[in-house]
Amino acid sequence: MIRQPQLEFWYEFASTYSYLAAMRIEKAAAEAGVVLLWRPFLLGPVFKAQGLETSPFALYPVKGRYMWRDMEREAARLGLPFYRPKTFPQNGFLAARIALIGVEPGWTPAFTKAVYTAEFGEGRDIADPAVLASILTDLGLEPETVLSEAEGEANKTRLRRMGDEVQSRGLFGAPTFFTEDGEMFWGNDRLEQALGWAVAQARRSDWPV
Amino acid sequence: MIRQPQLEFWYEFASTYSYLAAMRIEKAAAEAGVVLLWRPFLLGPVFKAQGLETSPFALYPVKGRYMWRDMEREAARLGLPFYRPKTFPQNGFLAARIALIGVEPGWTPAFTKAVYTAEFGEGRDIADPAVLASILTDLGLEPETVLSEAEGEANKTRLRRMGDEVQSRGLFGAPTFFTEDGEMFWGNDRLEQALGWAVAQARRSDWPV
Repeated sequence: MIRQPQLEFWYEFASTYSYLAAMRIEKAAAEAGVVLLWRPFLLGPVFKAQGLETSPFALYPVKGRYMWRDMEREAARLGLPFYRPKTFPQNGFLAARIALIGVEPGWTPAFTKAVYTAEFGEGRDIADPAVLASILTDLGLEPETVLSEAEGEANKTRLRRMGDEVQSRGLFGAPTFFTEDGEMFWGNDRLEQALGWAVAQARRSDWPV
Repeated sequence: MIRQPQLEFWYEFASTYSYLAAMRIEKAAAEAGVVLLWRPFLLGPVFKAQGLETSPFALYPVKGRYMWRDMEREAARLGLPFYRPKTFPQNGFLAARIALIGVEPGWTPAFTKAVYTAEFGEGRDIADPAVLASILTDLGLEPETVLSEAEGEANKTRLRRMGDEVQSRGLFGAPTFFTEDGEMFWGNDRLEQALGWAVAQARRSDWPV
């Protein structure tokens, strides 16, 4: 018997292509028989370490213009709503801190999709605690408790350390996928290859349960 | 009756993902019923206009490292040989000047694939006139005549003007595809969408022959 392969899914809430990946990854992973490990993180420090003061899409406007057009097309192709936020990149600090708390209790996937929908489907400001509190309420959670834990030093430190650690594994952008043998795939366009690699690797290694 | 839709294929000889696109685009276009317009160009001036002194893969080493690994995987997936050139980016000036001459007589596709194979399949130096002359000879052409026309002022000016013109249409990287209604698609990963758009656009406009 072979246990199910796993795939780490690293995403940043400000990232447009992370939105596309987040909205379709569960179905794709289920069809491939792959278990997802949701990994919210902050891309800002990763960009800074590369000498980038903000998103390359903001730094290089011709590339940015193309990205918005490509997002319109890709969202339409995937059947997803798409709204271009008034400011880009959005501040995803608080959303990432909250999402990290939900990983173990298991509400991170639902929270993540709701935040992306608010941001890129409805044009709401995801840095606004009221927007995030309303999402938490909809999920049956107690916003004040979650927000207080999210903003605690222990959680902030944990998020920062996870970012440092994944950066040391080669991550430079979002979304990024890692298979269990350390293979890295970057971008929504590589989701299928990442899942395929995860499955092939599990077959090769033939883990005992 | 509907005439066949066309797709412009803009490529730079130093570009790794242009290699992947060039080696598979003819089959994909034929299957879609799309006529290809081959457009060799120089990416250097386009990067400079964005404030980039060289390839982003050279400027951002963590992204560059990933690109080489991704190229290995993608080349394997597409059944193409892959050799990482000793220097990157290679100097593709002469190759682009030659390729431009062959567009009308029709030998540009064969020349382009042979140059990419020498560069990324065999690790040869495509800035070396002897390498390019040998490719021209294999194609039944007279290298001295072609090289002399390629290095003529008229041809150099034409290549430069084509680069300026396409940059004004929004191009910022390679490979890039344009459909006849001006829609732009960037990257080997978008070849299928570009062909699909070209076909859909032709159906919509229902051109008379």
